Amino acid sequence: MPHPFDDAIALSLGPDGQYGGATHPAYANMVGPFGGVTGATLLNAALQHPARLGDPIALTVNFASALADGGFEIEARPVRTNRSTQHWMIELLQDGEVAATATAVFALRRETWSAPEAQMPVAVPPAASLPRGDVRGRPTWVQRYDMRFFGGGMPEAFDGQEQPHSQSSVWLRDEPPRPLDFASLAAICDSFFPRIFIRRRLPAPIGTVSLTTYFHADAELLAAQGERWVLGTARALNFHNGYFDQSAEVWSDAGQLLASTHQMVYYKG
Amino acid sequence: MPHPFDDAIALSLGPDGQYGGATHPAYANMVGPFGGVTGATLLNAALQHPARLGDPIALTVNFASALADGGFEIEARPVRTNRSTQHWMIELLQDGEVAATATAVFALRRETWSAPEAQMPVAVPPAASLPRGDVRGRPTWVQRYDMRFFGGGMPEAFDGQEQPHSQSSVWLRDEPPRPLDFASLAAICDSFFPRIFIRRRLPAPIGTVSLTTYFHADAELLAAQGERWVLGTARALNFHNGYFDQSAEVWSDAGQLLASTHQMVYYKG
Repeated sequence: MPHPFDDAIALSLGPDGQYGGATHPAYANMVGPFGGVTGATLLNAALQHPARLGDPIALTVNFASALADGGFEIEARPVRTNRSTQHWMIELLQDGEVAATATAVFALRRETWSAPEAQMPVAVPPAASLPRGDVRGRPTWVQRYDMRFFGGGMPEAFDGQEQPHSQSSVWLRDEPPRPLDFASLAAICDSFFPRIFIRRRLPAPIGTVSLTTYFHADAELLAAQGERWVLGTARALNFHNGYFDQSAEVWSDAGQLLASTHQMVYYKG
Repeated sequence: MPHPFDDAIALSLGPDGQYGGATHPAYANMVGPFGGVTGATLLNAALQHPARLGDPIALTVNFASALADGGFEIEARPVRTNRSTQHWMIELLQDGEVAATATAVFALRRETWSAPEAQMPVAVPPAASLPRGDVRGRPTWVQRYDMRFFGGGMPEAFDGQEQPHSQSSVWLRDEPPRPLDFASLAAICDSFFPRIFIRRRLPAPIGTVSLTTYFHADAELLAAQGERWVLGTARALNFHNGYFDQSAEVWSDAGQLLASTHQMVYYKG
């Protein structure tokens, strides 16, 4: 049986060159689908496109409106293909209106001088030693991840006790387990709860408007990670008049940076 | 006389709805124009579009090929306009080929609960107490900024003495001075030298492939900043097989976050 993530990002190529897809109940959010899966589906249109060159380096997804549950079309255009890089513009339409857009840069990498600069946090407890985060009462998509927080988990109660920061540290993997690939890594990059919940401890209507993910891992490194937990660390810089940013890194359990990701999120104060 | 930056980002609206512009010698890079001005020009197409709603929140510019010196066309499409947000897809064409793309999210903000999380570095020397960075032998665009480093300036020599990190701290403003606005802030966000030069202290062919900027400032805060120096802090997370990331924050001299910015950069090792 296919993993629900593969069902959720599945696309069929129509005779007009457009892809058709549909939201999946296993990744339902409070309203419509989990944005991480929408972003992964937009990326998937380039990943499985016959003109694809190389692997993803950068992906930006803009959420133009709340998606409704149901079908959608995706148009993916390789607007420029160079010798080792390829640039994509991608649009997701629902009922004839643009509901999300994306741009992506793909590239062929080659081995050369490399140097990590950021380091995975030290003194990290093993994932297996931590309890799985409570998913009761949470949107369905949260149940599709095994998240084990050791700092900055979702507050048990929205008690309005404002925190000095919004940092989170979490081991996480798909649930059920699934080998990591570019699409699932893209979705994981949107799995960090809105920082305003951690910081302010009050409910608020929120919605990501723009999500950028940089892929530091190549296909080989992703394959080596397999189904094991990855480490995520997230924080915000600033909450200001209706928009806040958040940034996160995703690390392999061997301490290699797999992805770094940034987003701007609308909130109603 | 208009500021050269205004000349450089100037666009004329053609009868077909496309904008026409041209690279400007005052912002020339080693090859072609400074990418920050190209990004600001793409943003400017939305800023001056008759259908514009609100102010920029997020901008992603993908550099699909080296621009040649000379003219170009820009097509800016507001693909979705909601009550308080607007989503743009923008393409820059040169000789009929896509040379750069952008997406942007604009929004109307309203005053609500706000909270900074990151803080401007402490113990920052006043800009006026620092010497202006040497621009001799540097590309022309560098002369269009008054940069005063107090950490992580361009190495005086490419001596191959690899550094433990690539962090920079710099006061900077347009040269000649110019009141800060969204377009000039977007350009400043690409003015942080490629981190590989700071870290590795060796020359290398490089090119930004994707640049994302989040605008934390509204128009009022930008206007209050005027022509004074802003503080920039930049770093990288990872240099890996031909691509590295870099992130930077831009602060007002009063310690307010104006913008945060991220990019992925190609390098030849």
